[in-house]
Amino acid sequence: MTKEQYVYSFKEGNAGMKNLLGGKGANLAQMVQYGLPVPPGFILTTQACLKYGAEPSFLDEIWGDVERAMKELEALTGKSFGGGSNPLLVSVRSGAPVSMPGMMDTILNLGLNEQSVEALAQASGDRRFAFDSYRRFIQMYGNVVHGVNADAFEHVLDEVKKKNGVAFDNEISSGSLEEIVKQFKEIFKKATGHDFPSDPWEQLRYAIVAVFKSWGNPRAVTYRKLNKIPDSLGTAVNVVSMVYGNLGDDCGTGVCFTRNPSDGTKELYGEFLVNAQGEDVVAGIRTPLPIAELKAVMPRIYDELFRITTNLEKAYTDMQDIEFTIERGTLYILQTRSGKRSAGAAVKIASDMVAEGLIDRKTAVSRVTPEQVEMLLHRQVDPKATNEVLAKGLPASPGAGVGIVCFDADEAVELAQAGHKVILARPETCPDDIHGLFAAEAIVTSRGGMTSHAAVVARGLGKPCVSGCESVVIDVDRETITRSGRVIRKGDTITVDGSAGRVLVGAAPLQSASFSDEFKTLLGWADELTPLQVWANGDTPEDAKRARSYGAKGIGLCRTEHMFMAADRLPVMQRLVTADTIEERLAALNELKVMQREDFYGILKEMHGLPVIIRLLDPPLHEFLPKEHELKEDLDALVAEGKGQSPEAEKIRSLMAKVESLKESNPMLGFRGCRLGVVYPEISEMQVTAITEAALQLLDEGVDVRPEIMIPLVGVREEMEFFRTLVDDRVQVILKEQGKKMSYLVGTMIEVPRAAFVADDIAETAQFFSFGTNDLTQTTFGYSRDDAEGKFLGAYEAKGILRVNPFNELDRDGVGALMQIAVTKGRSRNPNLSVGICGEHGGNPNSIAFCYAIGLNYVSCSPFRVPVARLSAAHAAMGLLK
Amino acid sequence: MTKEQYVYSFKEGNAGMKNLLGGKGANLAQMVQYGLPVPPGFILTTQACLKYGAEPSFLDEIWGDVERAMKELEALTGKSFGGGSNPLLVSVRSGAPVSMPGMMDTILNLGLNEQSVEALAQASGDRRFAFDSYRRFIQMYGNVVHGVNADAFEHVLDEVKKKNGVAFDNEISSGSLEEIVKQFKEIFKKATGHDFPSDPWEQLRYAIVAVFKSWGNPRAVTYRKLNKIPDSLGTAVNVVSMVYGNLGDDCGTGVCFTRNPSDGTKELYGEFLVNAQGEDVVAGIRTPLPIAELKAVMPRIYDELFRITTNLEKAYTDMQDIEFTIERGTLYILQTRSGKRSAGAAVKIASDMVAEGLIDRKTAVSRVTPEQVEMLLHRQVDPKATNEVLAKGLPASPGAGVGIVCFDADEAVELAQAGHKVILARPETCPDDIHGLFAAEAIVTSRGGMTSHAAVVARGLGKPCVSGCESVVIDVDRETITRSGRVIRKGDTITVDGSAGRVLVGAAPLQSASFSDEFKTLLGWADELTPLQVWANGDTPEDAKRARSYGAKGIGLCRTEHMFMAADRLPVMQRLVTADTIEERLAALNELKVMQREDFYGILKEMHGLPVIIRLLDPPLHEFLPKEHELKEDLDALVAEGKGQSPEAEKIRSLMAKVESLKESNPMLGFRGCRLGVVYPEISEMQVTAITEAALQLLDEGVDVRPEIMIPLVGVREEMEFFRTLVDDRVQVILKEQGKKMSYLVGTMIEVPRAAFVADDIAETAQFFSFGTNDLTQTTFGYSRDDAEGKFLGAYEAKGILRVNPFNELDRDGVGALMQIAVTKGRSRNPNLSVGICGEHGGNPNSIAFCYAIGLNYVSCSPFRVPVARLSAAHAAMGLLK
Repeated sequence: MTKEQYVYSFKEGNAGMKNLLGGKGANLAQMVQYGLPVPPGFILTTQACLKYGAEPSFLDEIWGDVERAMKELEALTGKSFGGGSNPLLVSVRSGAPVSMPGMMDTILNLGLNEQSVEALAQASGDRRFAFDSYRRFIQMYGNVVHGVNADAFEHVLDEVKKKNGVAFDNEISSGSLEEIVKQFKEIFKKATGHDFPSDPWEQLRYAIVAVFKSWGNPRAVTYRKLNKIPDSLGTAVNVVSMVYGNLGDDCGTGVCFTRNPSDGTKELYGEFLVNAQGEDVVAGIRTPLPIAELKAVMPRIYDELFRITTNLEKAYTDMQDIEFTIERGTLYILQTRSGKRSAGAAVKIASDMVAEGLIDRKTAVSRVTPEQVEMLLHRQVDPKATNEVLAKGLPASPGAGVGIVCFDADEAVELAQAGHKVILARPETCPDDIHGLFAAEAIVTSRGGMTSHAAVVARGLGKPCVSGCESVVIDVDRETITRSGRVIRKGDTITVDGSAGRVLVGAAPLQSASFSDEFKTLLGWADELTPLQVWANGDTPEDAKRARSYGAKGIGLCRTEHMFMAADRLPVMQRLVTADTIEERLAALNELKVMQREDFYGILKEMHGLPVIIRLLDPPLHEFLPKEHELKEDLDALVAEGKGQSPEAEKIRSLMAKVESLKESNPMLGFRGCRLGVVYPEISEMQVTAITEAALQLLDEGVDVRPEIMIPLVGVREEMEFFRTLVDDRVQVILKEQGKKMSYLVGTMIEVPRAAFVADDIAETAQFFSFGTNDLTQTTFGYSRDDAEGKFLGAYEAKGILRVNPFNELDRDGVGALMQIAVTKGRSRNPNLSVGICGEHGGNPNSIAFCYAIGLNYVSCSPFRVPVARLSAAHAAMGLLK
Repeated sequence: MTKEQYVYSFKEGNAGMKNLLGGKGANLAQMVQYGLPVPPGFILTTQACLKYGAEPSFLDEIWGDVERAMKELEALTGKSFGGGSNPLLVSVRSGAPVSMPGMMDTILNLGLNEQSVEALAQASGDRRFAFDSYRRFIQMYGNVVHGVNADAFEHVLDEVKKKNGVAFDNEISSGSLEEIVKQFKEIFKKATGHDFPSDPWEQLRYAIVAVFKSWGNPRAVTYRKLNKIPDSLGTAVNVVSMVYGNLGDDCGTGVCFTRNPSDGTKELYGEFLVNAQGEDVVAGIRTPLPIAELKAVMPRIYDELFRITTNLEKAYTDMQDIEFTIERGTLYILQTRSGKRSAGAAVKIASDMVAEGLIDRKTAVSRVTPEQVEMLLHRQVDPKATNEVLAKGLPASPGAGVGIVCFDADEAVELAQAGHKVILARPETCPDDIHGLFAAEAIVTSRGGMTSHAAVVARGLGKPCVSGCESVVIDVDRETITRSGRVIRKGDTITVDGSAGRVLVGAAPLQSASFSDEFKTLLGWADELTPLQVWANGDTPEDAKRARSYGAKGIGLCRTEHMFMAADRLPVMQRLVTADTIEERLAALNELKVMQREDFYGILKEMHGLPVIIRLLDPPLHEFLPKEHELKEDLDALVAEGKGQSPEAEKIRSLMAKVESLKESNPMLGFRGCRLGVVYPEISEMQVTAITEAALQLLDEGVDVRPEIMIPLVGVREEMEFFRTLVDDRVQVILKEQGKKMSYLVGTMIEVPRAAFVADDIAETAQFFSFGTNDLTQTTFGYSRDDAEGKFLGAYEAKGILRVNPFNELDRDGVGALMQIAVTKGRSRNPNLSVGICGEHGGNPNSIAFCYAIGLNYVSCSPFRVPVARLSAAHAAMGLLK
């Protein structure tokens, strides 16, 4: 048995070793394999991080390996660590197996001390650079290793700049920097109680420890929790010899993408800064130049970069996000990784790469996430909007959001929890703001580019974001956004147009997303990769049309009660509900039947050739009556007019009595669903008649109709038997009367826990099941959704009692367990039973993955979510969703 | 393989063959084995009934066996069937394996026709007897075989009696009877369209067919459904040679019990009629004499009867119900079976028989049913009641009931469904009234004895009944009960004192049942037969005391919220609920803590040495606030007084706002249970503090306290973890402060379906489970109990969709399945987990049987139901309950 290796030189690794070397390290090693200009370095593995976490003395065991690796670095660079005339400086960075942008710590220029800074000044011929590097090192080391407040350092810098009348860091003189270094060391000593360490080996050791520990820092833990990344991965530590982009105007640093991450165009896209270090770009402190301008500034470098990045994309067969530095005319690639991209870009890139023969269709489908599809379906600002433009900035993340402005992440969370839609406005954002970004509808920053923290995170979250709005001042203390006299205050409403990079005053009209041909093609590929169909819930011919256009393969839930709410129908429905005799009830039903027949005619026609599941009346009858307090007001008004004894007043009184008699303590669990039809079978018979008559008319017209009648809220075998008989009897009577034939199915919703346990019995008379997971979640948890979301679910999520809101993502442990029981029992009695889901979870990716796993035939969701569901169904089949 | 035997002579059978020969036939056969004077006969088996039901031609296959059996009867009796000078007459009776008193049909005197009636007249020397038998035969045969309306026959009899100025059937002259026979035959012909059959073999065939068919008549089907008797048993047919109790004054007939079926006294108890046929006694048409008087009338017969019945009881080791006939000084035993008895009698008989060495304790426990225990716990009329006595009658079924009088079974059902308590008053009852008897609180009849239909059924149902109130006239047409000018009309309230045989005017005060020493002893024996303990639910020291006195082994549910509803506490609770700041809340909690500590002190002290499970606050907070409309009325009153701006008015307005903010759509599924404690942990902490302080005080006083803290409505593992930590932390703080030690447990209710599925996770921090099956039934079915029982459960039971109300009897398929999952999962993680039930089902016998079957440790129910539960737990362990 060989001893486990915890320290790898770049040349010992490759891209396949991400779990051990971290994403960044594995890619750096792979680039070395490709012969690319990567600064030499080595990696402490993720296993080393975990071992250290379990037992800190572990670092002593591998310290010899670290020393050997440093010796190798010295040999490769010809520099020496901590001394000599050509000092070796290194960066120490975290690199986890999964990308966690900006979440963990980095220290640059490690190895500097009083001696080596002088040697660096001599070797580089640039004293200013040497001391600037030193002060950066002290600043980062102090902050990362000892938690010294970054503001204290920044304050010194600001004072110096003010005193010297300069605006930017790079304008500070060499002499001032030496003074700054002294002051930084004093700050360090004051904060930590001891001198800044001058021994480079001590620096290295503490830096490595700090990166190991950063795996457990609160913002990293939060990020992992939100992104469902296991804590057990650990982070690797990359120790890389420093190269410098800030040694003069033949230096620079930048970030680029092999394709445009915003719209997917095949072009080298990115930003760079001349005479700057990489941190300046990533942190968004200075606004960089577009990469195209590099061609003019450094044409040879641009060409080399273009060649290298093109090859990297081909090698990885995916769009790459590459960091580079130019040190005195030499290009170094510091990092490559799959680039984050907007939803639109994801679709375009995947589609283009298939056309280019770079990837196959399955890979293309895997490259677009359900979340991105959801973003594509995000709203946009209506082009006809005439709102005043407050600011223009960078279109950092597409989509549009309207909300009230707020300037603090904590406050954004509070306002969102109180039900407000919030726009978070910040000069720039940092990882500490992550909870605010989650809570916001959209984000605006006055500083930072397309790769700034706010931009990257917003794209990841699918939130609209406009960054770099330099024309406005975002004042966090005064809580204002100001542009030449125009002031927007906290609580004012604004619109963020992330697609166009604009911020508008007031609430602009929004419009829903368009649906590109490439997107349609991709979804077509997705459909081929999964047996799980996507249907849509829809109550009108318009819904049905939209569902078809989004690719739905059927209507999984047509709620007949919505048809009764229309203005011309409600009075008839009220006559039905208030009927005292069966005759009055039948008269109202006859009128309703004519209306319902029209509704069903329209939907069945629109869905020709595809199944339409029509659910019989479900809600409690009192929902069709006016509210008690409205009636009371009307009556009071009549009494005030002296018409207290008029026929109108009597009518209101009788209506009030009916409302009173139908009142329920818990209507969710009350007289609704199939219970209505057991007590008033004539209502169900009317609906079955309307469906049958509409279907027969369409059959006469040559339309292929596939009606399926669904009984809601069944929990007892005998309920299903009752309705199967009722439906079959009614349909047969009509078929006999008209001398015709028709195919149809009768099935049920599974939406109370008991139904799952008797699903085998129910499946004897039900020809299909559809999970009503909204109600099933309510009954399984004992949560009334209406009450829970306002009263305690917030506290439950905040206190970590629930990881997600079970009304958003299907609860597998409880609701899912019941679904599994129902599927197993139902199919045990009826092996061909078709089973679907028509609760809102039918449009949620992780919920869809579960539906796939338990073998459902289809998911049915809102027409707008059909594309998300189609892609999710494919990803589920490919094992990409859990 | 031998051919299956479908016809058995009595001498071929015995008491062990009940399933094949029916209860009556098997016992007759057994009596023949004992050498008792049983009229010769034979039996067509239950299998024959079922075969006939499947294929009527089956009767032809066994008709040869019937003929052979008749030949044997002729040989044994020396009479000939259908002719000759000494005609053989037979009775044809049903006899199912399970007793169904009065439910099926009987035909007597079969074999009579124009010739044989004359032969009978000659052979008996009593022409009157012969024709009276003939007219009875025509009447029964017409009614049973052809459904001829019995009233038509009775009308003829009444007319003849009126014409001849006589009151009783036995006063009708021989000549008149011949005329009656003619008229009866005409009635028969008019109703059926053909002549009354004179061929005895045809009579026999149709009578057997009628009995077979009677198994499927509606009242028998209803009875079986109500009593859970399987339809697949079938009934046997007993064909028995007739003996006559109506041949003169040396004849008679009667029914007797080996012990008093009303109070259990060891005495020959029963009734007889001289010169009458058995039907006269059973139908309650004539009021018979007490059996003791037989000693005076026929001392030899009495002694023989006493000897035979005593031996029968010893042989069957149970109290027997025996029918006998005396034919011209010869005693015949027509039937013996285990006698129905009142609950009190059941206990006394079982207890006495153990003392007599006749049965063992286990058998004694099996002889008393849970339903009888429930009856024993029935109310009685307070001895101090001064209500006017309307009538005295026979104490036919013990207990007392108050209600409004009604005179029709259908109406009784309607009134009961509308929520009224009903007393059913009838001259006498018949099997067609069975639904009315079920619906009534109590029953009164003016005719019939202790063995009349009303009396037998009422005892079975545990309803109070007074029969034979001959001093009053119950007029069904006028809907009155009249006694010498005193008139009670429909809708008037009366009280039935079934224990004393009195009917009282108005609503008499009632008192709860007493608890005899024999009963206590029997329950003690029951406890020894089962591992399933019985605990009680109780919220006060009084409840706890009662629970102990009824034999509860712990408090399974102490609802702390009930303590807050007291007049002196509600205002403090309201201050808590309406608190705007944590300080206000803590101040109110401090006051409540002192009160709660007292409550817990009292209960824990009363239950010394036994566990007390205290549930933390459960109901939604708005339950502690005044109702919205009450506040509105108060405010309106203040406004009317011109005090609309007064501080009181403002206070009401602020209270109204709070009520509004706490309003919920579905409070059952809302902000309640442990959800309250997650949001307001200080409330839970107060309760834990109060429990701990009370317990510590009692420990100081040397009392053995066993507090267990129960968290309501847990459905998520993290909820239980949260509260386990909260409770343990709080208790530890107090123990440390006081420097003391205390044992306690923390557990949870399982009352939402999800809890069952994550029971393994919950059991990691929960030390016990208690099923809250009220809520679990609501969530599993999706039924709000408050709404369902008023709105649709009635229709569900009426339409056969639910066999029983799942709030009364535990639903095994759904709720039970969840319980099974929870027990299995919970114990998989925590093998010693104590599991009980504290829903109302904990007091329901069949539900208790299920709790036993799935291995619960205890059931907890209302203190009043503890005795029922104790016996049920024993019966469950003995396999007597399903």
